[in-house]
Amino acid sequence: MEMLTFAMDTEDGAPLYLQLYEYIKSEIRSGNIPCSTKLPSKRKLSSHLGISQNTIQAAYDQLIAEGYVMPLERKGFFVCKLDNIVKLESAAGAGTGESRKSLQKADHDFSYNGVDMQNFPFSTWRRITKDVINEYDGELLRSGDIQGNAALRRSIADYLRQSRGVSCSADQIVVSAGTEYLFQILIQLLGRDSVYGIENPGYEKLNLLFNSSRAKFKAINIDNDGMVLENIRKSGSDVICITPAHQFPSGGIMPINRRIQILNWANERSGRYIIEDDYDSEFKYSGKPIPALQGLDSSGKVIYMGAFSKSLSPSLRISYMVLPEKLLKEFKEKMSFIICPVPMIEQKVLCRFIQEGYFERHLNKMRTIYKKKREALSGAIAQAGSPMEIVGADAGLHLILRVNNGMSERQLVDSAIRSGVRVYGLSKYYLDKEYLNKKPELLLGYATMGEEEIAEAVEILSRAWFSGPIELEGQVI
Amino acid sequence: MEMLTFAMDTEDGAPLYLQLYEYIKSEIRSGNIPCSTKLPSKRKLSSHLGISQNTIQAAYDQLIAEGYVMPLERKGFFVCKLDNIVKLESAAGAGTGESRKSLQKADHDFSYNGVDMQNFPFSTWRRITKDVINEYDGELLRSGDIQGNAALRRSIADYLRQSRGVSCSADQIVVSAGTEYLFQILIQLLGRDSVYGIENPGYEKLNLLFNSSRAKFKAINIDNDGMVLENIRKSGSDVICITPAHQFPSGGIMPINRRIQILNWANERSGRYIIEDDYDSEFKYSGKPIPALQGLDSSGKVIYMGAFSKSLSPSLRISYMVLPEKLLKEFKEKMSFIICPVPMIEQKVLCRFIQEGYFERHLNKMRTIYKKKREALSGAIAQAGSPMEIVGADAGLHLILRVNNGMSERQLVDSAIRSGVRVYGLSKYYLDKEYLNKKPELLLGYATMGEEEIAEAVEILSRAWFSGPIELEGQVI
Repeated sequence: MEMLTFAMDTEDGAPLYLQLYEYIKSEIRSGNIPCSTKLPSKRKLSSHLGISQNTIQAAYDQLIAEGYVMPLERKGFFVCKLDNIVKLESAAGAGTGESRKSLQKADHDFSYNGVDMQNFPFSTWRRITKDVINEYDGELLRSGDIQGNAALRRSIADYLRQSRGVSCSADQIVVSAGTEYLFQILIQLLGRDSVYGIENPGYEKLNLLFNSSRAKFKAINIDNDGMVLENIRKSGSDVICITPAHQFPSGGIMPINRRIQILNWANERSGRYIIEDDYDSEFKYSGKPIPALQGLDSSGKVIYMGAFSKSLSPSLRISYMVLPEKLLKEFKEKMSFIICPVPMIEQKVLCRFIQEGYFERHLNKMRTIYKKKREALSGAIAQAGSPMEIVGADAGLHLILRVNNGMSERQLVDSAIRSGVRVYGLSKYYLDKEYLNKKPELLLGYATMGEEEIAEAVEILSRAWFSGPIELEGQVI
Repeated sequence: MEMLTFAMDTEDGAPLYLQLYEYIKSEIRSGNIPCSTKLPSKRKLSSHLGISQNTIQAAYDQLIAEGYVMPLERKGFFVCKLDNIVKLESAAGAGTGESRKSLQKADHDFSYNGVDMQNFPFSTWRRITKDVINEYDGELLRSGDIQGNAALRRSIADYLRQSRGVSCSADQIVVSAGTEYLFQILIQLLGRDSVYGIENPGYEKLNLLFNSSRAKFKAINIDNDGMVLENIRKSGSDVICITPAHQFPSGGIMPINRRIQILNWANERSGRYIIEDDYDSEFKYSGKPIPALQGLDSSGKVIYMGAFSKSLSPSLRISYMVLPEKLLKEFKEKMSFIICPVPMIEQKVLCRFIQEGYFERHLNKMRTIYKKKREALSGAIAQAGSPMEIVGADAGLHLILRVNNGMSERQLVDSAIRSGVRVYGLSKYYLDKEYLNKKPELLLGYATMGEEEIAEAVEILSRAWFSGPIELEGQVI
């Protein structure tokens, strides 16, 4: 090829070498400049286009770097052979993805996801963060310990020992970014051949998680005291996942004897473990908190899990677990590719927030606030004078409501939403639907609403459910 | 049981009801108060101990809540039956975990992990964070979108389109907390039956990760242009993981024709995918950046991955991927249990950092700084006048050094560390050791050191390797 001519755009912001590079590249890709073509020498092209040899060199260098052009010493620049790009028939129905089924708007939402929006200690958090972002702290830019910052782990261990009766050292703690990440670590650690027993009803995401990881799991029916030992045995589970402090969603507390039975089950055989998810144990409104099951365990059978999602905010994405020594050793050996997913700045902020006493103060404050909200809710329910019954312990950020008006769960939820209030049917938490309680039950979270709003919403619910004609399966009675 | 007597400690900070509760609990657990025992009535115990009935009620309530005691209406309070806790023989050798092999201390470390410590924009980051922690922003306390904050995803998409030639919308982006978490999502999405082909040599953590997830994987040998098509075919891989912008660790850039060949391979069959890890593509010191392979793909075959680990800091733990539409749809359907692991505050800070132009400015600044460091390193190597050769493109935060003095890799690394300089042998990046280059090669990262330190360290290396007697396999020559 003797010469190249292309229209330079001096108005265009792009440097000349880039324009030349883009032009030659597109000519090569379209086949207009065939393979093995010798490009014009820099000297010739320079005088032809009236631009400097350096500019041409820069364009050629880029083409060489990307593999469009090959330089041959003392011979010049040659266009490389490019295979044609074969296009696969675009898979049918890929589309742009459907938008989610739009949710009907509600004035009041008894959602379980979320915390009180008015009392987060923003100013303290801001001040500590400002202090933590410190150019003289070299640790802030390093990727850090796979289990999480050592000082943060010490703070968490102290808190767990004092407030939850967990027996642990900082070295046993693994910090992560949400319960689901901890479970994914555990599935890798305990092996996918283990059978996982999960509570029925239970945390709705667990089965999705085990499914997606293709781990074997069984739904194990609970009674008022939690997982039934006989059901655990029948299931053939190796590892069970339980919420003894406040069963999710039913709200029961596992009594000491069931705890001992379950520990004994785990102690019968090596490879058996109990995953204790202590998700909202910070909030108990009468009596003192129930100590963690982990504190009873002296054989390294309990994997304790906690999070700051309920006690501070789910948007912080900080969770942790306490590994028994044996699993800790395996974790360190096998999982060295993991890096603690929590940003170093946030780890340091949380550490100081705990160390300087703000976390305890916040918990005490929120316990009072949530207690009042719960009282507002149970008071309003009692005042309604309608046949409704509260189930579960005086704890956590939600309660279960039984409504005895003849409506099905679906009808209760639907008539509530038509009146502007969103409540949640318990059936979605049942993996084994056959076990579903015949009497409809609803889950009402009260963390995000104010006391007045709670009372107002219950009044609306009561009107929707107990006054006026009740529609049963489409018929007006 | 007629009465209980226990020593109250009025000096102890603990409330009386707690002391009473702890005492009765330990008596029950030790068997001193046997099952079915009737506890003293509140009235009697109150007058016996001289403390209020309310205090006793509180202690009994706690015992009831935990299942130690059962109240029977009009009968009183009875101790529940507790099974004995069986202890499993503690597994041999659990131990407390060995401390890691202590690493010899080095004065200078050519580590690849890390970024420049002097030029992180701390004050900007601090100011934006202060602004972002805002009590009027309700989004800060909600758990947010599973793919990450929408505004952040828009910023990332804009950046990728403009700077990396990636063709994507914000909707295709999934934000996560490190490349390893993205890979774990992909393994679940693409199925564990897929065979993953990884580069040999390559990123050392990938095989650990696939191993731990029990996904099938094959090491695929590379040549100067990256993965060889014939080797890909021979491996029977469905999904290949490559670093075309700057092969890790060898430093090569995949030329356009190899890119086309590999895309064509993926297009031949559905289920085939290319995972393009663009880990340090921001840093190219001559010519313009090589556009991403993803930009050539019009069939949804490339999963593009990036991170802010090299461009900002590994301690931020923010990575992202661009999913093709088909996989995006599956992700939304199957992986709803995932919550984006990056804290909301940090997502918003990064978003504003990009939107307000600070990210681009930081990249430009760091490109100059790292370029100078690289020049300092290559300059010092050239000046040493010893037979050493630099391999790989003028890009990234590391280079590969061949040292031709007859020493083995081990000897080079050891004699360097004896002189106080840590360098890294390339052999650890080879999964298929048979393919290991016969000539020893070393990886030298230069991001964390200053220019003067780099020159000094190279001088030390040169003395260690080229002056004085060379020990070969223990003999002094």
